[in-house]
Amino acid sequence: MNQTVSRVAVVGGTHGNEIAGVHLLDYWRENPEQVTRPSFETECVFANPEAHRCMTRFLDQDLNRQFGLGDLRDPTLTGYEHSRAKVLDAQLGPKEDPRVDFVIDLHTTTANMGLTLVIRESSPLLLDLVFYIREHMPEAVLFYEPEPREEDAFLTSLGRQNGLLIEVGPSPQGLLRADVFELSRRATVHALDFLHHYNQGTVPELPATQPAFEFVERLGYPLNDRGERWGMVHPDAQDADYSAVETGAPLFLTFDGETLTYDGTETRYLAFVNEAAYYKSNVGLELMRRFELKRRP
Amino acid sequence: MNQTVSRVAVVGGTHGNEIAGVHLLDYWRENPEQVTRPSFETECVFANPEAHRCMTRFLDQDLNRQFGLGDLRDPTLTGYEHSRAKVLDAQLGPKEDPRVDFVIDLHTTTANMGLTLVIRESSPLLLDLVFYIREHMPEAVLFYEPEPREEDAFLTSLGRQNGLLIEVGPSPQGLLRADVFELSRRATVHALDFLHHYNQGTVPELPATQPAFEFVERLGYPLNDRGERWGMVHPDAQDADYSAVETGAPLFLTFDGETLTYDGTETRYLAFVNEAAYYKSNVGLELMRRFELKRRP
Repeated sequence: MNQTVSRVAVVGGTHGNEIAGVHLLDYWRENPEQVTRPSFETECVFANPEAHRCMTRFLDQDLNRQFGLGDLRDPTLTGYEHSRAKVLDAQLGPKEDPRVDFVIDLHTTTANMGLTLVIRESSPLLLDLVFYIREHMPEAVLFYEPEPREEDAFLTSLGRQNGLLIEVGPSPQGLLRADVFELSRRATVHALDFLHHYNQGTVPELPATQPAFEFVERLGYPLNDRGERWGMVHPDAQDADYSAVETGAPLFLTFDGETLTYDGTETRYLAFVNEAAYYKSNVGLELMRRFELKRRP
Repeated sequence: MNQTVSRVAVVGGTHGNEIAGVHLLDYWRENPEQVTRPSFETECVFANPEAHRCMTRFLDQDLNRQFGLGDLRDPTLTGYEHSRAKVLDAQLGPKEDPRVDFVIDLHTTTANMGLTLVIRESSPLLLDLVFYIREHMPEAVLFYEPEPREEDAFLTSLGRQNGLLIEVGPSPQGLLRADVFELSRRATVHALDFLHHYNQGTVPELPATQPAFEFVERLGYPLNDRGERWGMVHPDAQDADYSAVETGAPLFLTFDGETLTYDGTETRYLAFVNEAAYYKSNVGLELMRRFELKRRP
């Protein structure tokens, strides 16, 4: 019944200024036994070395939005990250019939999101994998952003099975924190352990459901009459990722000191609060719903 | 006896990705009464808009290292920030006989340094000013980095009196936190209040001494045999700015898990721990000595 996992890619530096993954690749290059397992091959991939050299998220386009099948096959998309995506597709894919079975992509965030496991599709293998990680790291948060594999623009969609994006924060961009390095390392090791168990048919018993969060909407920073930014995340919401917000909860504070509150009626949960990478697109925070994610054995 | 302060410059965006100062300038442009005082004129100066547009610290050179008198007068220094420094010198200086009496320059740091008041010279006015701020904001840390005004390469050295650099953290680069905005705003307002008191001869009584920190040495991140980065700040030292370190205190952790400790015998204090801006120059942290800074009435 199990489709064997033969090739795994562990990817760092997809965003050039999220450097925990870049330095983990350095570490694993010298200690390859930590990412290899007897039942599959692992390749370590440095996705955007040029952006890292410039210590910036990307040069032309966000690389982690370029892996939709249509864009990969569109020869008119010729920017630097358009091109990197095509190269990575040739290296790990092609997406229609990929060489690599599973991609683990390492990211960091300036938001206080701890260890977040982002899954874009609910394949039985991927659900079991994140449930397995949570058995070993109960602090891990499951972040479910469903997206059909073909349209999915994330690098994790390149593998035969939809892969895992590991998002750890808070970490400033361009900086390596020991706690972020260690959480990223441990989550990756557990993911690889799971894939080996999966191949061997030795996956331990896992719970039927786990709490998870799903994206509902994005809210922008306050703007003035001229459309310029005129405020910031409210101190009560700053660093409060995954906390519940109810009607009237403070979300933003204008430069003049006016508090803007949550005007919805449903309980929501904060995520990507004041993420530096979303500053230019004016995304101040995301609101999520909490639900029980079911395994599909 | 008092030399009157007639013109003050409040500067933001000297480093383009330290955006609290940039947005404070936006705020004060709409609310100029908050930075004006009856006894002097205030001008708000956006020092490096191009670096801010690219959300980077600088384009060619660190702007806040370009204000030594020799460099300002060297026509062969033609990089972007070399040129910005010459323009700012023409606008606020010239350094030999400046139009502006006092410069307040707003910075942020990724290190957990709270509100730090950096002074480069111990003029009686500047000491009184930082002592005054500490009377109103006892959390303020005095950071003394003596440098003769002529050689001083900081923008704060452009004024007739050596000025004040306000450094607030922790804040990721390219991101605005409400707490950082508010600390920066309040410290600036108190500095301006002091200058008005100074002009009026109404400076209240101030303590004779205050604790302060002075730079002793920089320590680099661990490197491997090939001179590549091979470690990070130890979790015990991360976020521990201004904590005391004694012989044997953990400072760094290699990727292999080896702890590197402080091998000095004098008590030192941490500062600029894991500052993202110093990543490329491999400065992992600074060690300071603590001393009592005396007013010079």
